[in-house]
Amino acid sequence: MSDATQYEKTPRSTVNRLKQRAVYDQETIRSIIDTSPILHVSFLPVHPSDDPFPTILPMLGCFGAYTAPNAELQSAPAIYLHGHSASRFFKLPGNTSSWAAEEGLPGLPVCVAATHIDGLVLALTPFNHSSNYRSAVVHGYAQLVTDAAEKDYALTLITDNIVPERWANSRVPPTEAEMKTTSVIRVDVVSASAKVRAYTAGNDKADLEDESVVGKVWTGVVPMWTQYGEPVPAVENRVSRVPEHVARVIEERNAEGEQWAKDIATRKAPKKT
Amino acid sequence: MSDATQYEKTPRSTVNRLKQRAVYDQETIRSIIDTSPILHVSFLPVHPSDDPFPTILPMLGCFGAYTAPNAELQSAPAIYLHGHSASRFFKLPGNTSSWAAEEGLPGLPVCVAATHIDGLVLALTPFNHSSNYRSAVVHGYAQLVTDAAEKDYALTLITDNIVPERWANSRVPPTEAEMKTTSVIRVDVVSASAKVRAYTAGNDKADLEDESVVGKVWTGVVPMWTQYGEPVPAVENRVSRVPEHVARVIEERNAEGEQWAKDIATRKAPKKT
Repeated sequence: MSDATQYEKTPRSTVNRLKQRAVYDQETIRSIIDTSPILHVSFLPVHPSDDPFPTILPMLGCFGAYTAPNAELQSAPAIYLHGHSASRFFKLPGNTSSWAAEEGLPGLPVCVAATHIDGLVLALTPFNHSSNYRSAVVHGYAQLVTDAAEKDYALTLITDNIVPERWANSRVPPTEAEMKTTSVIRVDVVSASAKVRAYTAGNDKADLEDESVVGKVWTGVVPMWTQYGEPVPAVENRVSRVPEHVARVIEERNAEGEQWAKDIATRKAPKKT
Repeated sequence: MSDATQYEKTPRSTVNRLKQRAVYDQETIRSIIDTSPILHVSFLPVHPSDDPFPTILPMLGCFGAYTAPNAELQSAPAIYLHGHSASRFFKLPGNTSSWAAEEGLPGLPVCVAATHIDGLVLALTPFNHSSNYRSAVVHGYAQLVTDAAEKDYALTLITDNIVPERWANSRVPPTEAEMKTTSVIRVDVVSASAKVRAYTAGNDKADLEDESVVGKVWTGVVPMWTQYGEPVPAVENRVSRVPEHVARVIEERNAEGEQWAKDIATRKAPKKT
């Protein structure tokens, strides 16, 4: 990966179908990953000759770039994931007898995906039905983060990515036991791509000219977004007012999600290619 | 898979971490998959010795059980996925020179995952932060559906799973060209499991007894759900009133999503194990 703002097109990342929806710029890919409330991470737990099934785990994480104080070069953006040290996924990259290590690979090959659904696209015919969405797929090698400073950086990053300023507004630093039972994995990006559909329903000329079709079938978009509701305090909560950093994330994400979903619902569909 | 209502626990499906969140009953798994606006499907495009990276594609689909009219036994529930016939994924299972066919596997090994995020769980310490979620992971062999009646069944099923009654309320039947460019894949289930977290924040005794922590840190849940907005008609739309089947799905899904996310936010956290 270079420091350019575009990811390279590789056979693995190149979008073949509906090329007009494909994007490779780092900013779009990063924004889709970082704003997703969940990431889906795929990997092979054992060598495919022992079990040919990849598996998927839902995980929390986001993009970050940690550069050690004495490093000569700035690090490229990578995806940081965190989880329990005892879980299968977090034990794999540091395991020298894992299938990936035995194959001499520079880490565990993983795929990280995030998808936002921004609307139901209802066309005249089922065939033209679709969704408005923003989807990112990233391939990379997973590495266990062993450097204490990088691990601190990643844990703060992931927590604040979910709710900005949350780390500083909770009980920190973590205890030694908490740090020991939490692991961080860094996925060094090998290839990445995104697909975005963001416009009104696309219908065929033949259907639009057929009175019996347009006179009967409703066509358009039902906008969709992730809604954050009123915070519900725990029974043990003793802070009476919902803190500013929590109120703000709810307000901002709701406004952004709703605005985007509604805006794109009226955008013109591109000519079919 | 038997016709029992529980999926068998296998090494592949057995949840090791946080066992109290694990469920294996078919009804829960099916409901998580069927109510998800998007499925994430993982597979190996080529033999892992040529490229060790699994990939993930976001896809539409749901559970169904098609039994041919002359069949002696009822079919087990499988996941049906649809997509463009020219896309890489839909060309793989019917390809006799694919790596899976060459290995003699009974189909392309895939993993299908769906995750609903039902809330942000804000604890006193970052370590106890979590999400409320319902997540299902299904492993199975993907087969290209070649039987015309089963394909019809699956396309109607997938369309009506997104918006009930939509198939009958749009221009059907599909044209020959539409049927030709649409492919259906059936994933015959080999193993499946789900994980559900549905309760308030869990905090450690030491933090709850520390005045400087409980006096400062807000703890509780921010409920989250998928919100469906007002339908936005396409410029070409000629049906003035939003049809009943569209209005109903919006109303029902919003009510269900909001109700669940809020209900579970007040549920007691189980004792830590």
